[in-house]
Amino acid sequence: MTTNTTIPVLVNGSAEDRISSLDRGLLYGDGLFETIAVAGGRPRFWLRHMARLQAGCERLGIPCPDADRLAGEAQGLLPDVERCVLKIIVTRGTGGRGYGPPADPQPTRIVQRHPWPDYPASCREQGVRVRLCEQRLVPNPPLAGIKHLNRLEQVLARQEWDGTDIMEGLMADWQGNLVEGTMSNLFIVQDQQLVTPDLGRCGVAGIVRAVLMELAGELGLSVAVRDLGMTALREADEVFLTNSIIGIWPVIGLDEHAWSRGMVTRQLQERLAGLPEGDDQ
Amino acid sequence: MTTNTTIPVLVNGSAEDRISSLDRGLLYGDGLFETIAVAGGRPRFWLRHMARLQAGCERLGIPCPDADRLAGEAQGLLPDVERCVLKIIVTRGTGGRGYGPPADPQPTRIVQRHPWPDYPASCREQGVRVRLCEQRLVPNPPLAGIKHLNRLEQVLARQEWDGTDIMEGLMADWQGNLVEGTMSNLFIVQDQQLVTPDLGRCGVAGIVRAVLMELAGELGLSVAVRDLGMTALREADEVFLTNSIIGIWPVIGLDEHAWSRGMVTRQLQERLAGLPEGDDQ
Repeated sequence: MTTNTTIPVLVNGSAEDRISSLDRGLLYGDGLFETIAVAGGRPRFWLRHMARLQAGCERLGIPCPDADRLAGEAQGLLPDVERCVLKIIVTRGTGGRGYGPPADPQPTRIVQRHPWPDYPASCREQGVRVRLCEQRLVPNPPLAGIKHLNRLEQVLARQEWDGTDIMEGLMADWQGNLVEGTMSNLFIVQDQQLVTPDLGRCGVAGIVRAVLMELAGELGLSVAVRDLGMTALREADEVFLTNSIIGIWPVIGLDEHAWSRGMVTRQLQERLAGLPEGDDQ
Repeated sequence: MTTNTTIPVLVNGSAEDRISSLDRGLLYGDGLFETIAVAGGRPRFWLRHMARLQAGCERLGIPCPDADRLAGEAQGLLPDVERCVLKIIVTRGTGGRGYGPPADPQPTRIVQRHPWPDYPASCREQGVRVRLCEQRLVPNPPLAGIKHLNRLEQVLARQEWDGTDIMEGLMADWQGNLVEGTMSNLFIVQDQQLVTPDLGRCGVAGIVRAVLMELAGELGLSVAVRDLGMTALREADEVFLTNSIIGIWPVIGLDEHAWSRGMVTRQLQERLAGLPEGDDQ
């Protein structure tokens, strides 16, 4: 797999892989994105992704492109593709005066088709080792939960390690509360309860995270959204990570702490995989 | 003045105003920028801007483009331009796996020539009214001081007001310490001392800010870099804002508080304007 694989891209509906160097997405990170799994030729959890994109646009004051239009553009990139990753970026477009947004923004829509990443099956089946990143997440409620384009904290965190022994880094806030992974949400299982950090101050409210919180009841699990420190993590029965592409990865090690891929994680993996492909529930 | 003024741009030295939609500058705000005043056809404080850009690149782990190369590209856009704004953007380029940077990044260099902004002379001569923004700056030491592309806090803050009665918004951190304006640094004068907020946790270390801290001694002023709350601001003898384009703007009002353009501000304005054009000291 070369790094120069051509990535098919539509910018504002045109077969074009470039954007203006005056786009506010570049100048300020003034925009949002979604990373969507395509399985069986259909974008998975499409409506949820569109709802989060819309919520993010509302938060930033960007007019959200019509979801049907984005769906059409996405489908235009998927005619004969079974499995891939769709990335959709929406920026506030060009214009305005410095940081001040234009009165009548014309958002830029970017739809990219990326190859399905080649993570080893062992990540899902046996689990992964993680590290605790030194880079912290800063509390910023106006930006919390949404998937905006200001991602330097994640870039710096991901620079902290190399190699494939460690597959993800956990990130804490300045108080030491664990928030999420650099690219995933964090769950623990403790006494038949699913616990995931509160994302009201920082973090990205993941799509699979929301799906699992809904599925939990069917498995007889209660769900708690609360602060989660290292002590709770160490004492957890099971630990796992989620995102739209990896699904669920059991966590089996962090420094000297070890966990097994437990029954609850396994059941959730099966339930998630068993949802109808492309279904939005 | 229309908003569609053509902005001359060089991308990696070529007359090209677009960048790849896969550029990490867009995807993550993974890069830095400099906004440089051009006066008399020469970029002002060029060496200082290049030093800050280099420091920012080192902080993010981006190989900094050669300053002479950037100087050549900037000069290529300035043949017959007396007064304008140069914007230089350096990103980590394309590649990498998700947030993880590529092992051998090829930075993207973008040089843009913008028209000189038409701020009224009264801003400099009589002073400006400001507001206190609701949007806070979050403490993030690894990113503090450098001029990176994650600027959503400033965009959200600048959205809080319209019109030209208020010309700038002051931003505080979560503890209520004033840090800077959305696009400028903040100074107060109190008992012949120049005070400006510490930028070790957040904020951009401005070029004119550094110049003034050096000039202060010549005017018999001491300089203090420390936390600055609303009480100190209210009690200040003089208040002013700085950046590379506005130079120094006296602050004459914030809500019901009023200040005059004082002698120290006036002297600093004269000293700053009197520095040889294009000189880097």
